Amino acid sequence: MPTRFRQLTLLGPGLLGGSIGLAARKRKIAKKVVMWGRRLESAEVAVRQGAADWAAPTLGEAVRGADLVVLCTPVGSMVKLTREFRSELTPKTLVTDVASTKNNIVKQLSKILMCKAPYIGSHPMAGAEREGLQSARSTLFEGAVCILTPQSRVHKMEMKRLADFWRALGCRIRVMTPAEHDKRVAYISHVPHLVAAAMVNGVSRRKASAFDCIGNGFRDMTRIASGSAEMWSEIVLSNRKEIQQCVGYLMEELEIVRRYITHASEPELRAYLRRARRWREKFRHCVQDATQT
Amino acid sequence: MPTRFRQLTLLGPGLLGGSIGLAARKRKIAKKVVMWGRRLESAEVAVRQGAADWAAPTLGEAVRGADLVVLCTPVGSMVKLTREFRSELTPKTLVTDVASTKNNIVKQLSKILMCKAPYIGSHPMAGAEREGLQSARSTLFEGAVCILTPQSRVHKMEMKRLADFWRALGCRIRVMTPAEHDKRVAYISHVPHLVAAAMVNGVSRRKASAFDCIGNGFRDMTRIASGSAEMWSEIVLSNRKEIQQCVGYLMEELEIVRRYITHASEPELRAYLRRARRWREKFRHCVQDATQT
Repeated sequence: MPTRFRQLTLLGPGLLGGSIGLAARKRKIAKKVVMWGRRLESAEVAVRQGAADWAAPTLGEAVRGADLVVLCTPVGSMVKLTREFRSELTPKTLVTDVASTKNNIVKQLSKILMCKAPYIGSHPMAGAEREGLQSARSTLFEGAVCILTPQSRVHKMEMKRLADFWRALGCRIRVMTPAEHDKRVAYISHVPHLVAAAMVNGVSRRKASAFDCIGNGFRDMTRIASGSAEMWSEIVLSNRKEIQQCVGYLMEELEIVRRYITHASEPELRAYLRRARRWREKFRHCVQDATQT
Repeated sequence: MPTRFRQLTLLGPGLLGGSIGLAARKRKIAKKVVMWGRRLESAEVAVRQGAADWAAPTLGEAVRGADLVVLCTPVGSMVKLTREFRSELTPKTLVTDVASTKNNIVKQLSKILMCKAPYIGSHPMAGAEREGLQSARSTLFEGAVCILTPQSRVHKMEMKRLADFWRALGCRIRVMTPAEHDKRVAYISHVPHLVAAAMVNGVSRRKASAFDCIGNGFRDMTRIASGSAEMWSEIVLSNRKEIQQCVGYLMEELEIVRRYITHASEPELRAYLRRARRWREKFRHCVQDATQT
């Protein structure tokens, strides 16, 4: 039996907002799903597509009466929006966001919402290289990890409510500090994204004819390079310190591999690849919802 | 109407040999498909799974009477095998192989087979991270590129026969020299493989807890790191010169990206990611047969 919310308010009718709405309505998680977008028409499209019951004409009307508000806009506008709708909140309205880095945003939103409404940061690891409402789907969160990053003063009951919400959408929950979150996603999301872009750009500059011969391996390895450049440069620059270090680590690894190849050290290279294979095998069944483009 | 071969002989009942057999029988490309394996039982399993009509007990019997022989064994045993079955060949037997690097093998096999039987190298870009007959499937080649690397003395008719064969299995044909082949696959196959391994090993060494949070992006980017360490170290070491250079290029790209991040150069980073996205979009529809693990 999923947690029932009376009113779930989604701010931002994009891929994530739209997918949350579709999944919440399909799984009957909320009696009413309200969508707000900077342009009313976008929220209305979301309603027509089944991602919400009502398109709120103003931010105030959207938030009023909600027991859960999810910020799904680009991270750059979250602080401003929260300041705008803050006055509509009661202590019964739980607020969360879906930003891809947590250190800054959690600090800022916690401060704005302190003594006003409970707030916990969320990060459902379920982006896709296709953005926008047209790519939204009710299955986006199935099997995906959702990381929650509570501050120390967060109440247990609120944590349970939020975890139950994401679980009801299909997520597996992980809980950690914003700092730990930002470190981990640098390794498994931000740097991989930069690597995918670097591989595509490297080939395009030095041997573009090779694109004509690619197989599934290259296609899958570079899929995330199709993501929005605007969104990703914003994300990556909001986690600079961790990423700088992590790119350095990756270059050290590549240096090791290059050395094995230069010296034709077959046993070392084989052991290196075997190690990678062993670790990869451990997590190959971790993720379920499969998208391919 | 596919080209009909009287007898197609496959040497090596692994992923590629098995998949060629399954596809050739399903598409009725050959009247008879003969399989040979170092262990007779393996070839017999292939017959039971529908990948061949007959399991030849000896290499001589396998090759005798064939109008097409495809070497599907590990690259390290191809030269020895070819020397062994050479005496069974007639000028009507077309010989090819599926090795992942071409410079060495094409030179060696051409020399052994000269004045004996026509030979053209093939490389169907349709590997998978799962090896072995149990992963073979008749659809493996659908939409995949197959690169042919003929020597200058190859007859046009032979080229057409071989291209028609791979096309009948579902491949798209590209023709180039062995040297050009090895350069291109360094960029789009060998180095990406090493990068996937480097990413997995880097995370495992420095932040293994991050594996617990991965999403589809990291899963897809590292899929090929699940490939056989033995096979891949052999492949990679047979293309050392190209790979060394190509790893260097990739590190230069990563250095560029790291500089943008260190200096928080948003416009440059955005342009970099946009360039990658533009190129990635060009080839996202290139590959059709979708495998996911």
